[in-house]
Amino acid sequence: MNGAHSLTQTLLANGVDTVFANPGTSEMHFVAALDDTPEINCILGLFEGVVTGAADGYARMKDTPAATLLHLGPGLANGLSNLHNAIRAQSPIVNVIGDHAIYHRQYDAPLTSDVEGAARPFSHWVRTTANADSVSHDTAAAIAASLTNPGQIASLILPADSAWNPVENQQEPEKAFVPAAGIPADDIIEGAAAALKKAKNPAILLGKNALREVPLRSAGLIAEATGADLLCPNMVARVTQGAGRVPVKRVPYATPAAVDFLKDYDLLVLVGSKAPVGFFAYPNRPSALTPPAMHVVELAQPRHDLTASLEALVTAVGADSAKEATTSALDLPDLPTGSITKEKLGDLLANMIPENGIVIDESITTGFTFFSTAATAQPHDYMLGTGGSIGYALPTAAGAAVACPDRKVICLESDGSGMYMPQSLWTYAREGLDIVVVIFSNRKYQILRDEMRNVGADFGGPRAEALMDLTNPTIDWVSLAKSMGVDGQAVDNMDDLATAFRAGLDAQGPYLIEVVM
Amino acid sequence: MNGAHSLTQTLLANGVDTVFANPGTSEMHFVAALDDTPEINCILGLFEGVVTGAADGYARMKDTPAATLLHLGPGLANGLSNLHNAIRAQSPIVNVIGDHAIYHRQYDAPLTSDVEGAARPFSHWVRTTANADSVSHDTAAAIAASLTNPGQIASLILPADSAWNPVENQQEPEKAFVPAAGIPADDIIEGAAAALKKAKNPAILLGKNALREVPLRSAGLIAEATGADLLCPNMVARVTQGAGRVPVKRVPYATPAAVDFLKDYDLLVLVGSKAPVGFFAYPNRPSALTPPAMHVVELAQPRHDLTASLEALVTAVGADSAKEATTSALDLPDLPTGSITKEKLGDLLANMIPENGIVIDESITTGFTFFSTAATAQPHDYMLGTGGSIGYALPTAAGAAVACPDRKVICLESDGSGMYMPQSLWTYAREGLDIVVVIFSNRKYQILRDEMRNVGADFGGPRAEALMDLTNPTIDWVSLAKSMGVDGQAVDNMDDLATAFRAGLDAQGPYLIEVVM
Repeated sequence: MNGAHSLTQTLLANGVDTVFANPGTSEMHFVAALDDTPEINCILGLFEGVVTGAADGYARMKDTPAATLLHLGPGLANGLSNLHNAIRAQSPIVNVIGDHAIYHRQYDAPLTSDVEGAARPFSHWVRTTANADSVSHDTAAAIAASLTNPGQIASLILPADSAWNPVENQQEPEKAFVPAAGIPADDIIEGAAAALKKAKNPAILLGKNALREVPLRSAGLIAEATGADLLCPNMVARVTQGAGRVPVKRVPYATPAAVDFLKDYDLLVLVGSKAPVGFFAYPNRPSALTPPAMHVVELAQPRHDLTASLEALVTAVGADSAKEATTSALDLPDLPTGSITKEKLGDLLANMIPENGIVIDESITTGFTFFSTAATAQPHDYMLGTGGSIGYALPTAAGAAVACPDRKVICLESDGSGMYMPQSLWTYAREGLDIVVVIFSNRKYQILRDEMRNVGADFGGPRAEALMDLTNPTIDWVSLAKSMGVDGQAVDNMDDLATAFRAGLDAQGPYLIEVVM
Repeated sequence: MNGAHSLTQTLLANGVDTVFANPGTSEMHFVAALDDTPEINCILGLFEGVVTGAADGYARMKDTPAATLLHLGPGLANGLSNLHNAIRAQSPIVNVIGDHAIYHRQYDAPLTSDVEGAARPFSHWVRTTANADSVSHDTAAAIAASLTNPGQIASLILPADSAWNPVENQQEPEKAFVPAAGIPADDIIEGAAAALKKAKNPAILLGKNALREVPLRSAGLIAEATGADLLCPNMVARVTQGAGRVPVKRVPYATPAAVDFLKDYDLLVLVGSKAPVGFFAYPNRPSALTPPAMHVVELAQPRHDLTASLEALVTAVGADSAKEATTSALDLPDLPTGSITKEKLGDLLANMIPENGIVIDESITTGFTFFSTAATAQPHDYMLGTGGSIGYALPTAAGAAVACPDRKVICLESDGSGMYMPQSLWTYAREGLDIVVVIFSNRKYQILRDEMRNVGADFGGPRAEALMDLTNPTIDWVSLAKSMGVDGQAVDNMDDLATAFRAGLDAQGPYLIEVVM
């Protein structure tokens, strides 16, 4: 057994059975080891951002890590921006980054770089394995780091000689020791309960795993017992919503809207979340979005078991845990017709989300209201951008589809954002991923046009305008998709969109619709 | 005047008049300042790897930096892999990376990351400017760092408030102080001359600027006086070659071939280059490619003025500097016909390279011999990958075309490599860049198939094969190009390729040819 086999066996022994890969020469022994480990599903991406973004989407749906396979410093570099998003999504990911054989590093070959240095700003845990014998231990440590609550990025650097050398002291693959996530001390829980009872207009801001179906029921009971509103951050990794689920309100993106949204609450209870802050700084606008007089109480930190923390709070506020929380009723908008508007797009989406669907939303300026409109749709999971690194949706949808092959994925993408990692479509076709992609083609960086005004920069000069304009040339998304094996069509009215959307939902495999705005 | 205007004016005052950009909210004041600085040519890329790769290509042709404009840590991250290539190309680049306003960083907004940490592994110089007043000084320092011989990556981080705040102490834009590149001490030059005269079979390995037309003439005189062969590294940023230029031999890529190529030389004189090393480590193959008995003498370091260093060596070896060095004669292969072979592709290329053309070669396994075949073509510049980070050619060609609008650029790209940054094509169309792109579609990662054998991994398992296979689905490069406004056609024989190539050369603007292998 060589180090590469030790790696694949340790991954498998710890339940990591999915690898998103863009390998190179230094990873060839790992690739060979995969041939001996058919239990591992290995998925090729033609660009590393696809690989890391897919690992994020996989983790959001499974709560367990996929591994990535990346080629030295530059291959890692191409995947870093989606690792940034994954950090903010609190997704567990195990990166396996091949590097030169240790004895080769002194020669400063062309591909040599500071791999650890490149990984560190975008990882919670970084280690270079020393030799083939240490691979199993370090792999288990990486898996444990990734699974440490609430989910972390672990980057294991594997020099080529650690992969190809034999393991001298053969042992069983090491098991990852994952520290248990506890709940806060009693006095913290009692304090939060007391604050909720005392407040006139309280809100509870729910983070990551608190936004799943079961903990949301607890949150719903607390809300009913205390009069609190249930909120989620603007950028949230995944919310379980729709009919039969306890609804939450999303904090708006724009600073003035968010300040207005939060201004009347006198208490904010944090459950694995942080008090909302401005996405950017703007001259003469606040960075903190919460009103100065607001009382902010942290019930649970992201490292805690948020489900158990909320259950404890149910008891502490005196709610009846046997009761059923009030949930959203199914309320589907009519299918809109005629010309395209943002409001109609939201209604169409809410009407057509299939039961148990997964919605991934990077529609940005087109779709600021889609999330709330979908709250009374069929039950589904809704994912949003988390780290603000543009272009996450196409890759992340791939990972979600791999994680949940029996569920339909709907990827709502902007044309500007979609152009960061269009290679994702090739992986959709190759794997037959069941994804309907809707591209909202407004043919501009509309968010920048808005933001230019928000930051108070002079607006309207022809050169600035040109830097936000995507009409020269226009992008033909249907041709782009077909070039990578994904079928699709363009539409310019709601009726054709409904027909195309239905066709996409009924199809097996990927389908792309370009909505020309 | 605000900090953003201070930035644009300082760039311009130091001759930096080209900006490759993918801006975001934190860079909006810079974008607004560009509207007041029409002397700066600002070129949009839809992905940051396009931006940094273009800056590399620009620098290779101009020997002066372009600026890049990148959006916070993730935007920088997307550009890092081509910065790695630029480091190895010794290209001067000034990155301007927007960041949150300094007072906003404490809030840990979603896009917050360690920008300096991300820049450092891929930069020679990193600085975060403190306020609007320090922008001009720091910009000048960045330009000076980039131009410090042989060319460096300078990353200037510009917090949003440094851009939008007024400059309090108005001054003229600061001028960059660039240290002069000297030549080695006399005894070093005399020592190299003595070694060359004494050696039986010497070679001179020329780096970066030594591979331009004028210093190559000096090198040719030295070679004739001493019997030395003139060599260039396998991965080289730019070589001036073709008819009327002094030819050089390229060290092969594969370790056994390179060892064989170098084995009979008893002396290697380094002129701004390093003794060749294996691109990767391979079990049971050496990392150093030079024979153990070889005498290696460093005439000049990369920081030296290589042109002047070679002129000094001409005198030291007693060659006649007034003499004309022997150059390549024009010798064009016949235009090949019939089915496609790698050899015929090289002949077609050599036949059709236009006078003063710029060839950018990432053809990898298809084109290992293209460089040497082109040595007797019309005079041209030939660029190769330098850092081994795949996908550099499409972006780098954009920058070369922007730098040299009166010259035809020929981009030789592999299908696997081309899929890393296909967004480059959109910038070609938008700017009307005069580039003929030839995609060699072998529909596999052929280099990995070769390398898997080279590293001694078991080869031939179906899962490993699948990870190197690009047939499922095949990529339709013509549709891909057309989706981004670039016209093209696919060919499957040499006759059609010649016709298409001629059409591409005759066209104004970009044209793509997919060669189905």
